Amino acid sequence: MVTGCPRADLDEVARLAPFGVATVHEAIGRTGYLGPALRPVHLGARIAGTAVTVICWPGDNLMIHAAVEQCRDGDILVVTTTSPSADGSFGELLATSLQHRGVRGLVTTGGVRDVAELHELGFPVFCSAVSAQGTVKATAGAVNVPVSINGQRIAPGDAIVADDDGVVVVPRIAVSAAVAAARTRTQKENETRAAFRRGELGLDRYGLRAELSRLGVEYLDYDSDQELP
Amino acid sequence: MVTGCPRADLDEVARLAPFGVATVHEAIGRTGYLGPALRPVHLGARIAGTAVTVICWPGDNLMIHAAVEQCRDGDILVVTTTSPSADGSFGELLATSLQHRGVRGLVTTGGVRDVAELHELGFPVFCSAVSAQGTVKATAGAVNVPVSINGQRIAPGDAIVADDDGVVVVPRIAVSAAVAAARTRTQKENETRAAFRRGELGLDRYGLRAELSRLGVEYLDYDSDQELP
Amino acid sequence: MVTGCPRADLDEVARLAPFGVATVHEAIGRTGYLGPALRPVHLGARIAGTAVTVICWPGDNLMIHAAVEQCRDGDILVVTTTSPSADGSFGELLATSLQHRGVRGLVTTGGVRDVAELHELGFPVFCSAVSAQGTVKATAGAVNVPVSINGQRIAPGDAIVADDDGVVVVPRIAVSAAVAAARTRTQKENETRAAFRRGELGLDRYGLRAELSRLGVEYLDYDSDQELP
Amino acid sequence: MVTGCPRADLDEVARLAPFGVATVHEAIGRTGYLGPALRPVHLGARIAGTAVTVICWPGDNLMIHAAVEQCRDGDILVVTTTSPSADGSFGELLATSLQHRGVRGLVTTGGVRDVAELHELGFPVFCSAVSAQGTVKATAGAVNVPVSINGQRIAPGDAIVADDDGVVVVPRIAVSAAVAAARTRTQKENETRAAFRRGELGLDRYGLRAELSRLGVEYLDYDSDQELP
Amino acid sequence: MVTGCPRADLDEVARLAPFGVATVHEAIGRTGYLGPALRPVHLGARIAGTAVTVICWPGDNLMIHAAVEQCRDGDILVVTTTSPSADGSFGELLATSLQHRGVRGLVTTGGVRDVAELHELGFPVFCSAVSAQGTVKATAGAVNVPVSINGQRIAPGDAIVADDDGVVVVPRIAVSAAVAAARTRTQKENETRAAFRRGELGLDRYGLRAELSRLGVEYLDYDSDQELP
Amino acid sequence: MVTGCPRADLDEVARLAPFGVATVHEAIGRTGYLGPALRPVHLGARIAGTAVTVICWPGDNLMIHAAVEQCRDGDILVVTTTSPSADGSFGELLATSLQHRGVRGLVTTGGVRDVAELHELGFPVFCSAVSAQGTVKATAGAVNVPVSINGQRIAPGDAIVADDDGVVVVPRIAVSAAVAAARTRTQKENETRAAFRRGELGLDRYGLRAELSRLGVEYLDYDSDQELP
Repeated sequence: MVTGCPRADLDEVARLAPFGVATVHEAIGRTGYLGPALRPVHLGARIAGTAVTVICWPGDNLMIHAAVEQCRDGDILVVTTTSPSADGSFGELLATSLQHRGVRGLVTTGGVRDVAELHELGFPVFCSAVSAQGTVKATAGAVNVPVSINGQRIAPGDAIVADDDGVVVVPRIAVSAAVAAARTRTQKENETRAAFRRGELGLDRYGLRAELSRLGVEYLDYDSDQELP
Repeated sequence: MVTGCPRADLDEVARLAPFGVATVHEAIGRTGYLGPALRPVHLGARIAGTAVTVICWPGDNLMIHAAVEQCRDGDILVVTTTSPSADGSFGELLATSLQHRGVRGLVTTGGVRDVAELHELGFPVFCSAVSAQGTVKATAGAVNVPVSINGQRIAPGDAIVADDDGVVVVPRIAVSAAVAAARTRTQKENETRAAFRRGELGLDRYGLRAELSRLGVEYLDYDSDQELP
Repeated sequence: MVTGCPRADLDEVARLAPFGVATVHEAIGRTGYLGPALRPVHLGARIAGTAVTVICWPGDNLMIHAAVEQCRDGDILVVTTTSPSADGSFGELLATSLQHRGVRGLVTTGGVRDVAELHELGFPVFCSAVSAQGTVKATAGAVNVPVSINGQRIAPGDAIVADDDGVVVVPRIAVSAAVAAARTRTQKENETRAAFRRGELGLDRYGLRAELSRLGVEYLDYDSDQELP
Repeated sequence: MVTGCPRADLDEVARLAPFGVATVHEAIGRTGYLGPALRPVHLGARIAGTAVTVICWPGDNLMIHAAVEQCRDGDILVVTTTSPSADGSFGELLATSLQHRGVRGLVTTGGVRDVAELHELGFPVFCSAVSAQGTVKATAGAVNVPVSINGQRIAPGDAIVADDDGVVVVPRIAVSAAVAAARTRTQKENETRAAFRRGELGLDRYGLRAELSRLGVEYLDYDSDQELP
Repeated sequence: MVTGCPRADLDEVARLAPFGVATVHEAIGRTGYLGPALRPVHLGARIAGTAVTVICWPGDNLMIHAAVEQCRDGDILVVTTTSPSADGSFGELLATSLQHRGVRGLVTTGGVRDVAELHELGFPVFCSAVSAQGTVKATAGAVNVPVSINGQRIAPGDAIVADDDGVVVVPRIAVSAAVAAARTRTQKENETRAAFRRGELGLDRYGLRAELSRLGVEYLDYDSDQELP
Repeated sequence: MVTGCPRADLDEVARLAPFGVATVHEAIGRTGYLGPALRPVHLGARIAGTAVTVICWPGDNLMIHAAVEQCRDGDILVVTTTSPSADGSFGELLATSLQHRGVRGLVTTGGVRDVAELHELGFPVFCSAVSAQGTVKATAGAVNVPVSINGQRIAPGDAIVADDDGVVVVPRIAVSAAVAAARTRTQKENETRAAFRRGELGLDRYGLRAELSRLGVEYLDYDSDQELP
């Protein structure tokens, strides 16, 4: 249990949210994405906050209870297990407790339950499974130590952004730079979108015709060439 | 094909439904849960009924047709296969036939199809896959013999509860006790919810501080201790 | 890159759509289904169109950009990779570009991102994953060569139908026959539905009692026989 | 913890072993097979014994230790978990303890470790994973209650046969009948083998030509028919 | 059932075998590989032959029996199913029958059993699972129509090469060219091997330093730069 | 590309090897295990060395070639990809090059090929797949930056131990302590092994009877109690 971890600035973190997960991931050099296994149970949320990290034993949610006390306004709880576990270690009561403290959502490599009730509460969860399977409170783990999900390191206090595309982590010290890079990227995407609506092709806009040619891609007419693969 | 199986009392079964899957699973000692692989195709249903069980050969739905005749008001059809199969062995026509007999839904380890039409019909399905793949009617199986899903035994006539958290089975002779236990648990959860809304912590309410201490969990301040993992 | 591929007649293709995936799959002899791994991100669409096929390297979407130029009104883009890849090789900008050309949707064995934005655009996607993971544009592939998904061959210009049950391919030269067969099948299903609503059983309607008997299925009464499995 | 469970007769069980898993599975009506996920770590063993069953919490092997005391000569330990777990809950020390009591092998839906040492000991293990991941001893489970693996029920005292094809369970009261049926089947297979070595075809020996014809299978010559699929 | 299919020349096919799967796959432009899911049960075989293809219904091996008659000296049986199935549809008796006809091995996306006996027979099998689960003979399929595995098309008479790296298919009309290309590649690899043994680096031999530079890869010294990721 | 990374002392690392993966993992507090997905292709090796880390793009092995130059005597190459990939990015030629530099083996979350040749070379590989699928050299990655596998962080220069139980990482600065802890644990295990051979039970040796009692585990006699689950 590590207490007193520094957190990314909440105002900066709030600026990250509207860009969404895909744009933030691109903006920080195609890193930080926690993988396609972490999905929202209900589509439609987009949140950003600061990570409080938890490592649990499989089938055990003792450390989630221990972590609640470490949470404060603007946090997102990030839970992982020492071995893969889909058990429903998180449900509506824990969400109630977290909401009271201003926590904005849950990210877990494990399972959640009470998903109808969680949706009513308006507490967004990003998880790898929905499972009613209950857990025990018998084995120690850790709170607020760095964890890894999908090969990405999440330290306590890092910024987390989550939406229908999944979850991305931005290192605490990189949040301001990420906001700036995401802003630049979004501007460029706006211009590209307008161009695409006018009928311009990515092939031309991104200069890909030369790349195709360099790679030896040839254009064959269907009728003239019957030795197609 | 076994006929004339006794069923759990439908009034008692109806009392189970509002507690939901997670609470019922906890109330019967964290058993009976059919696992996170069985999901509703559309969220939002919560049903309870008595099991009619079916074992099919993979890629074959002959025994589902045979089972329809054994179904009556308040039943839920529970289908499994001798080997894993995601084929769409169940669709809108079978649902129409079952609805006519008062069947409340389908639970299957296999696949379903016509899911848009099933949703329109208001016939809830809990399955491991959506698949348009058609099946044949060529190989024998069994109806109303005990089956196992996720290590849990389901006998014909047992109570089935299904909602957005998945599916749970309650043995026929344990239904009354389950209702009572679920009621007690819900009452306790209501009190806990109220406490959590007031800001009480699970750590205190469940007496977990002593447990953490017994397990050797230590609190370290981030700043004072740089040898963190 | 193969250009000038013949396409199935769009009027005929449009007639396929209302039958839906399951009926079309049955109508063409239980073939053409692309498997339960390809799912819509949002339920509720039903589309039909002509295939433009793409083979990409994993983690690379160069050939999708190259394929856009080959697309025209009524097409559906069908993307696969040389090795399994869930990366988000398709998003809102590509969809914008395709919509401009009259493309009706995307089918991909890979991943998509910007799924909230795609839903707003009204551009249906059928995929195996949602992933924010970005891709590069560095390696050649192919456009408009035959591809295989779930053991089913998809040639450029073949008809594609996709709905909440998944995706089915109909060979270009078989589309008219498929429309006719689907019509016949639907008519028969309408009659069966009416019969089922009246309480007739599949056992009787499909002549399955004789089949059960031929296969040696016996009916045992629960009370009379205690040596059940 | 259930003590004093009756066991299948060890002499009869010994007669099952030489038939092997596939033959025994066929002899008891294609039932009892524990599925392709349970594999030997090293090929080459073929064992039969009586089941002592264990249910553990994931990541916890307390109940395996409790089960050792219930084991006696001729037993095979059968371990499963309340939720899927690949953790290495069994290793060389437990095998040493079991070998001292005459236990013939381990069947587990979980993981094992020290596999080099287990092989040296000559203690066969059938498992779903090899994993060095350690486990705790913190949560209760059960010993010698019926468990289900792959939809098959295993009661304490049932006969277990395991070889390179996997694991099969024979209900305690069915062992003698299984020996007889396996003997008959083996005799028939010996005759079939001799026939196949002489060049007879299964098509003729099993009367399948009529079946193919009944199912509408047609023979087309490659040269005469160009409308092949 | 298609009879009289032309086959690749067996002498040419025999020349493919010693190059092995990886080299042949590279020689034909990184195509034809049937994927990592198809594994030999026992390591150590390397075979080449001409494909006889089979499509079975899941849980059914009728068409394998039908295919035996179509097999002749130098063939390899290639089996797939209409839906994924790991059932043990092939065992020692079928292998005996095939060996009598000069068949060199089996490739199947399904399961095999009797694997100890198959190894004794010296009949190599490449499969996705070992399973004792028995199958029925109740549903029609096809023999000697093109099939697709891992997105690769296998037509009857195509060349198949299989070894510890898996299985590759070479189109019938491309076998001679594949032999020539594999020979060239092997020669080049021999030279590269000699160079690597002398200490030359791939970076230099393949001209990759320029590529790294073009891609913007920078070399940083560990000590001088503390802002590493 | 990071050069000049400090490495764990090779003499200390060599002392870790004989303890094996499971013991080292336990000795460092049940951490560092890279998970059951990483398996040796051939059983029987046990190696220890210092990590050189590589991150590749899926389907691309450019950075493995770049990493060779950074390897020296006693190293083990540790490869991961930005997205899951089973492609055969490593084979006999790369192994030849690495062996020349004194590298002791390969650990990869991806695939390897030429496995027969690798075995002949005596170059141990630990991987998640065998695949002949070839890769390109088109996209940049990283060498000698920290990577995460199975939630465990591997920094360049850390100690790697690999055997039939999988792979474990020991942080560079913890190697000496790990050797000491493994020695202590092994001594204790030797005593336990001797006790188990004498017939002592883990229940008694580890004081688990009290734990079972505390957890409420009851002993029931099979005959006296028919209300068993």
